[in-house]
Amino acid sequence: MIMASNLTIPKGTRDFGPVEMTRRNYIFDTVRKVFRLYGYLPLETPAMENLTTLLGKYGEEGDKLLFRVLNSGDYLSSVPQSDLLKADSQRIAGKIAEKGLKYDLTVPFARYVVQNRNNITFPFKRFQIQPVWRADKPQKGRYREFYQCDVDVIGSDSLYNEYELVQIIDEVFSRLNIRNTIRISNRKILIGIAEIIGEGDRITDVSTGIDKLEKIGIVKVNEELSSKGISPVAIRNLHPILLLKGDTFGKLQQLETILAGSETGLRGIAEMRTLFNYLKNDTIESDIQLDLTLARGLEYYTGAIIEVKSLDYEIGSICGGGRYDDLTGIFGLPGVSGVGVSFGADRIYDVLKQLDLFPDRINSDVMVMFVNFGEAEARFADNILKQLRKAGFSSELYPDNVKMKRQMSYANSQNIPYVALAGEDEMQRGIITLKDMKSGNQMQMKSEELLSFLDSHPD
Amino acid sequence: MIMASNLTIPKGTRDFGPVEMTRRNYIFDTVRKVFRLYGYLPLETPAMENLTTLLGKYGEEGDKLLFRVLNSGDYLSSVPQSDLLKADSQRIAGKIAEKGLKYDLTVPFARYVVQNRNNITFPFKRFQIQPVWRADKPQKGRYREFYQCDVDVIGSDSLYNEYELVQIIDEVFSRLNIRNTIRISNRKILIGIAEIIGEGDRITDVSTGIDKLEKIGIVKVNEELSSKGISPVAIRNLHPILLLKGDTFGKLQQLETILAGSETGLRGIAEMRTLFNYLKNDTIESDIQLDLTLARGLEYYTGAIIEVKSLDYEIGSICGGGRYDDLTGIFGLPGVSGVGVSFGADRIYDVLKQLDLFPDRINSDVMVMFVNFGEAEARFADNILKQLRKAGFSSELYPDNVKMKRQMSYANSQNIPYVALAGEDEMQRGIITLKDMKSGNQMQMKSEELLSFLDSHPD
Repeated sequence: MIMASNLTIPKGTRDFGPVEMTRRNYIFDTVRKVFRLYGYLPLETPAMENLTTLLGKYGEEGDKLLFRVLNSGDYLSSVPQSDLLKADSQRIAGKIAEKGLKYDLTVPFARYVVQNRNNITFPFKRFQIQPVWRADKPQKGRYREFYQCDVDVIGSDSLYNEYELVQIIDEVFSRLNIRNTIRISNRKILIGIAEIIGEGDRITDVSTGIDKLEKIGIVKVNEELSSKGISPVAIRNLHPILLLKGDTFGKLQQLETILAGSETGLRGIAEMRTLFNYLKNDTIESDIQLDLTLARGLEYYTGAIIEVKSLDYEIGSICGGGRYDDLTGIFGLPGVSGVGVSFGADRIYDVLKQLDLFPDRINSDVMVMFVNFGEAEARFADNILKQLRKAGFSSELYPDNVKMKRQMSYANSQNIPYVALAGEDEMQRGIITLKDMKSGNQMQMKSEELLSFLDSHPD
Repeated sequence: MIMASNLTIPKGTRDFGPVEMTRRNYIFDTVRKVFRLYGYLPLETPAMENLTTLLGKYGEEGDKLLFRVLNSGDYLSSVPQSDLLKADSQRIAGKIAEKGLKYDLTVPFARYVVQNRNNITFPFKRFQIQPVWRADKPQKGRYREFYQCDVDVIGSDSLYNEYELVQIIDEVFSRLNIRNTIRISNRKILIGIAEIIGEGDRITDVSTGIDKLEKIGIVKVNEELSSKGISPVAIRNLHPILLLKGDTFGKLQQLETILAGSETGLRGIAEMRTLFNYLKNDTIESDIQLDLTLARGLEYYTGAIIEVKSLDYEIGSICGGGRYDDLTGIFGLPGVSGVGVSFGADRIYDVLKQLDLFPDRINSDVMVMFVNFGEAEARFADNILKQLRKAGFSSELYPDNVKMKRQMSYANSQNIPYVALAGEDEMQRGIITLKDMKSGNQMQMKSEELLSFLDSHPD
C-alpha cells in the first residue's frame, strides 16, 4: 500500500485547489462570456484521439511529445515475436497504442469540422476551452497538462473576422484589467518582402531572423541572416523595411511602394489596410501596432498574424493566432479558410497574480458562515440561509457543534467576511449577532435584516 | 494521409457540438451554482494519475478498465528480454506504463486530501466536475469518457452534512425542473438487520438480495437469498422488516424494537432520526423516502446511502452517494469521515431531453444577427453591437458581404430570433429594420431603440 508520505502526481501535472480554481474560473468565465457575446459557440472534443489523426501534424518533434494510450486487453498479441525481440520502442508503439492524448485543440477542431462538414453551417464560429497534453520536459511555466482557450471562425475569409477577434482580445483583457499591446503582422507581406529582397524561397529563414529583432537587435539579426546564407544585398534591402517609421497607414503606404513588384505582398497590404480601417474608428483600449517583425508560426499562417503581450509584466505572449487558409486540408478538405486566436490561461494567471489584479472576492465565494450551536439553532440558521441563497449569496452553517474557536478559525481560513452567531438567546429574540471578520466589529440585527445588510455591503 | 471519409474518434468517446455543449453547460452551471451557494469549493485533479495511485482501488475488474499511458521515450529499455519473449501483456504493462487516466473522481480526491492534509482546513467542502475514463465495452448510455460531478464534505461526521446534501440535490433538480424521488437508506441499519436475522457475516449477500426487491419482488428475493445459503429462519425474519409500513418515524420506531439487540443497528436508526428531523421542517420539493431496500455500494458506504431517480422518465439513478468513514484510509490516513453525492450528467441530460425540459433559449445564445451590407454598414452595425454586448446580449454581424439568402439561412440554422437589417438607406436615417424570425414580421426602429426593444422581448 502507498503511504501518505510518498503520494505524488505525474510530473508536469497539477492539482488545482479551491483558490487556484476560483481564480482560473474567473479567467475562463471572462473569456467564455466574451466569446459568447460575439456569437462564438462552445465545442468539446475527447481527450483521446486516434493516433492516425494526431501523428504527422506537429512535425517529428511533436510526434515524440504525444502521450500514447495502451490498447486494452492483450495488447501484445498483435505484435510479431520478431518485433518484440528487437525491442524497438517506436516500432512497437505503433502496434500496441492506437490512441493518444490530444496535443492541441487545433487538429481535433480540424478533424471535427471535416467529420461534420455536412452538418455544420459555415461560417462556423466556435471556441474550445480544454486541457491538452505534451510529454515535454517539465520546467518553470511549462506543463505536461495545460489548458488552451481557442476561438476560431472557419469558412469565411472576410477580414471582419480578424477585426472581431481583435475586439474580443481587447474586451477580454479590458475586463481582466490587463493593459496590453496587440501586435499584428501579415504573412503575405512577409512573403512579399522575401520576394522583393530576392530571397523568395527563403521566407522561413528571413522571417525567423527578423522575428528576433526586438530581442537581439538589428546587428545580430543581420549576422544571423548572413550565417543562413541570405545575400548581403538582400540584407541591405531588408534594412529600411524593418526600420519603417510613421503611423500604420504611413507605413503601409511606404510598403506599397517597396513591394510594388510582389502581387502577394500587395494583397497583404490591402488586407492590413482593411483591418486597420475597421480598427481606427473603434474604441479599443489595447495598444495596437502593425509590426512586421512578428513572424511566428509561419508554416501555418497565411494572412494576419496576431500576438498580445502584457504591458506591465513581461512573460511573453499571452494570446496569439492568425489566419490559416488550409486548416482542414490535412484531413482532405481543402480550401476552408479560418482565423483564430488562443488565450494562454497559465500566463494570464501569472500576469493577474503578479500585478495583483485578481478581485479580492469572487462572486461565488462564501459571504456568511453561521456558527453551529446545535440542532435547534441549526434549524433557525437554516431558514435564514435559505433566504440568503435565494438572493444569490453563498453561505453556510458550520456542520459540527464544536468549540467556537475551531469554527472561527475555519471561517478565517476560508476568508469568509462575515460570521453570524445565533445562539439560544438570539434565537428567542429573533436576532443574530454578525461579526465583521476584517474589523472584528460585532453588530446585532433582526434576522430578516441580514439580507439587506449584505446587499449594501458587497465586501 | 487520412481522408475525410474515414475520420473517426475512439469508440466510446464523443464530440460535443454547440447545441449539446450549451445544454450540458446549462446542467453543469446549475449544479456548480448550487454547490457554490452552499459553500462548496471547486477542485480539479490531473487527467493522469500514477498507476500506483489507481491500481487496486476498484477491484480486479476495475484495474482491467484503466486506460494506461505509455511511458515516453525508449519505454521498452527497462523490460528484460525474457519478459518480452513471454509476451505477457499484463506483466509488461506494469513496466512500460506508469500513468493511467483517472477512473473516477473519488480516488484522486482521496489522494489529494492525503497529499495536502497539512494545508487543508477541515471540514473540506469540495466539488469536482471533470471527465473520467473507463475501458468499458461501449454501449447505449455507457461511454469510455464521461463527466462526473461529485460534491463531498470530508472531515466532519455531523449529520447536518447529509441534510445539506439532500438540500443541494433538491435545489439542483428543482432548478432543472426534474421531479424526483430521493431514497435514503443506512448501512448501519442494514448491518443491524443482518445481525438480527442471524446472518451478521453475510451482510453483502443479504443486502444485494434486498436491493433487488423493487425490481423482482419479494418471492424472487427470497429465492435468491436462499440460493446464497441464507437460512430459512433468517429469510422469514427478514420478511416483516422489508415490508414495514407507515411514515418514516413510524418505521424507525418499529425498527428500534426489531433491532434492539444490535448496537450498530440502533446507531443507524438514531442517525436516520436526526436526518429526517432536519428534513421534516424543510420546504423540500423532492419526494423523500426512507427505503431500506436501497443497498448500493456496500463495500464503501458506512452510514447514509442516497439515491435519486426521476419521477417522470425511468433511466435509473440520476444522483447517488452516501457516507464513507474511511475514504483516505487507502492512502494511509485513517479515520477521516466523509459524505458525498455524485450527479450523473449524461442521465440528467437524457431526462431533460426526453421530458423537453431544456429552456428554449439559453442566456448566452445569440439574440440578434446583423446582415452584412459592406464595410460602411458594418461600422454602423458595430456601434449598435457594442451597446448590445455591453448590456449582455450576444449578437453578431455576419462576417461576409454575400447574398442575403445565405445570411438569412445562417441565422435560421443558428436559431437566432432577430435579424437586423441596416443598409445604406437605414444607415442614413439612423434606423434599423428588425425581422422577427419566428413570425416573419418586420419593424423599423431607431437604432438606439433596439436595446430597449430586446430588453422587453426576452424571447
